[in-house]
Amino acid sequence: MISEKMRGYVENSSAIRAMFEEGKKMADQFGAENVYDFSLGNPNVPAPAEVKNAIEEILKNEDARMVHGYMNNAGYEDVREAVAASLNQRFGTAFHKENILMTVGAAGGMNVLMKTLLNPGDEVLTFAPYFGEYRAYVTNYDGILKEVEPNTETFQPNLKKFEQMLSEKTKAVIVNTPNNPTGVVYSEATIQKMAAILETKQKEFGTSIYLISDEPYRELAYDGVEVPYLTKYYRNTIVGYSFSKSLSLPGERIGYLVMPDELDGAKDIIAAAAVANRILGYVNAPSLFQRVIAKCLDAKADLEYYNRNRETLYNGLQKAGLTCIKPEGAFYLFVKSPIADEKEFCQKAKEYHLLIVPGSSFACPGYVRLAYCVSYETIVNALPKFEELMKNYK
Amino acid sequence: MISEKMRGYVENSSAIRAMFEEGKKMADQFGAENVYDFSLGNPNVPAPAEVKNAIEEILKNEDARMVHGYMNNAGYEDVREAVAASLNQRFGTAFHKENILMTVGAAGGMNVLMKTLLNPGDEVLTFAPYFGEYRAYVTNYDGILKEVEPNTETFQPNLKKFEQMLSEKTKAVIVNTPNNPTGVVYSEATIQKMAAILETKQKEFGTSIYLISDEPYRELAYDGVEVPYLTKYYRNTIVGYSFSKSLSLPGERIGYLVMPDELDGAKDIIAAAAVANRILGYVNAPSLFQRVIAKCLDAKADLEYYNRNRETLYNGLQKAGLTCIKPEGAFYLFVKSPIADEKEFCQKAKEYHLLIVPGSSFACPGYVRLAYCVSYETIVNALPKFEELMKNYK
Repeated sequence: MISEKMRGYVENSSAIRAMFEEGKKMADQFGAENVYDFSLGNPNVPAPAEVKNAIEEILKNEDARMVHGYMNNAGYEDVREAVAASLNQRFGTAFHKENILMTVGAAGGMNVLMKTLLNPGDEVLTFAPYFGEYRAYVTNYDGILKEVEPNTETFQPNLKKFEQMLSEKTKAVIVNTPNNPTGVVYSEATIQKMAAILETKQKEFGTSIYLISDEPYRELAYDGVEVPYLTKYYRNTIVGYSFSKSLSLPGERIGYLVMPDELDGAKDIIAAAAVANRILGYVNAPSLFQRVIAKCLDAKADLEYYNRNRETLYNGLQKAGLTCIKPEGAFYLFVKSPIADEKEFCQKAKEYHLLIVPGSSFACPGYVRLAYCVSYETIVNALPKFEELMKNYK
Repeated sequence: MISEKMRGYVENSSAIRAMFEEGKKMADQFGAENVYDFSLGNPNVPAPAEVKNAIEEILKNEDARMVHGYMNNAGYEDVREAVAASLNQRFGTAFHKENILMTVGAAGGMNVLMKTLLNPGDEVLTFAPYFGEYRAYVTNYDGILKEVEPNTETFQPNLKKFEQMLSEKTKAVIVNTPNNPTGVVYSEATIQKMAAILETKQKEFGTSIYLISDEPYRELAYDGVEVPYLTKYYRNTIVGYSFSKSLSLPGERIGYLVMPDELDGAKDIIAAAAVANRILGYVNAPSLFQRVIAKCLDAKADLEYYNRNRETLYNGLQKAGLTCIKPEGAFYLFVKSPIADEKEFCQKAKEYHLLIVPGSSFACPGYVRLAYCVSYETIVNALPKFEELMKNYK
């Protein structure tokens, strides 16, 4: 009774979400404190106090008919103006409100973009390992997602392969830095090289290739690492942002797209994206939270909390005999499985009540992802379990 | 640079929204009090006090990590349970939480359903006049929307034509009662006849035909008129609901789907709809407002306000020489244009600062739609303008 396409999606439905459900069941069975769920990027750090204060202020001072009402499909003009001004101040850009489209989280923004840009058969490139949902976002609009194979030494993008895979059919490239699932931040040098390749290929093919920077983890960078702002390096860059992680609001579905004036066909793209936002049924980003984030653009979730988790888990896993790149951003560790079949390793881990996600879900088998946006106690209590688990492989 | 499909959508982009923007510009130019904007269904009645109270209670008593966090893609279990219980109490149904999927408004729910059900070329029937966005919701998934021509005497569905148009290709039928744009409520007799036709045709074709009841206006019925609950009349019924009008929360994007166990393939449809909700980028309905509506299921926007508007506008327009069906529900009047070309009439109305929408936007030329969810003062002040306008046609 369901569509053929959906049959495929349901069958391949995210292993991450399945594990989320399984984790809840295990928590019911064994007690939440005895299950170590590293499967989902659901922040354990509460939203900063500014969020609650902003909600209260808005309810007190603003007209309910405006706060909960329809506005331009692109979002409230004052909110988009505030977002543009904040970006300009932070990154030395020159955006104005027309460049900003408020979206139902980053996932909504990505769907809006794919709907806006893709004709059937258009190719979109991304770098493995990558967030598995990109595949659906592209195929929803009959595009073809092509994955650039990973450089497992550094998990920086494999630019040599990338260059070979770009073609006349390439409509867009999705990058995600800081990266889910590796935690890697793309260096400025990497981005400059990538931009140069794209410029050359655009000229060679006489096409426009849009670089889509999916940035839900932008604010989560450690050790003072800088996350370059990509619109400054490549003209045809569109940025997707979400407040899910930076303000711990994943359930509220609030984010935005940045579509600079410098894009080829900027005017058409900006107009079409607003229409796509409407006809895909988002209509507009949730109104109260548009107004909330405008008051919280300088607020941040507690980065130090994540950093302590990162250090503790990274060091503990090393000690248990596991290896991984030390992540500079996001809240994930991408760990080499001690056996080639990482799904089997994840199954084994479950016996120790450790919930981790197979790298296959990110097009990178042989690795597993751990989300460390959990409580510190979860990490401390999980580490002896990892030690026990690893005894099976010695 | 944009996709072919989007080029079409942008060109045909909603006349309603264009007028919304134009109304704002006119308000800036002439002063808001001198522009009479009947173009958009943006409630002028504020959300009931229960909404604000619920938000404050939730922020005070519930854990921010839960309130703003991810949950099952279908929505919080306690919220879905509360929605099911409320429906069961009101309509004598027997839903449970698995039948409820929380959505990003009714528009999000409709897209989820079309994504879930439609293969390319599948036909979806609806009754003219209808909410123009249905066309996009269907064609987004390569379905074909077929409109059943209206019965302009009563604006009840034209069941004779309907019966003729049902075919092996018909996957779904969309109904909307109380209706946008006519305000008509489908009577129980009409629904019984429609159900009988559908049953017969299902048997004849050996197919399943899903009746999709889009119900954002369910709570807005006047004069004690009953709005029948369609799942009780036809087994393959799916209901889409929104709190946009009932609680005056259109910007918050909160609604739900009801997918009963009795549906053919219920289990598959329920599972696929949750996946569609995720991969279309909604991920989940906004979390705080899920929790809010669970506390406000018995609350209602001020129906008496709309009713006074309805009576005043209806009587005033009659007096000015315009004719229309007296609506029993929603907050629209669908008025016969005094000239065949209703677009020209709308242009003329603009000279009097009256913003109204051509019936062509609803596949019913020769009529115009007025949304009376405006302030009472707007109606009172607009009526002399309608009298002046109508002098052109005497």
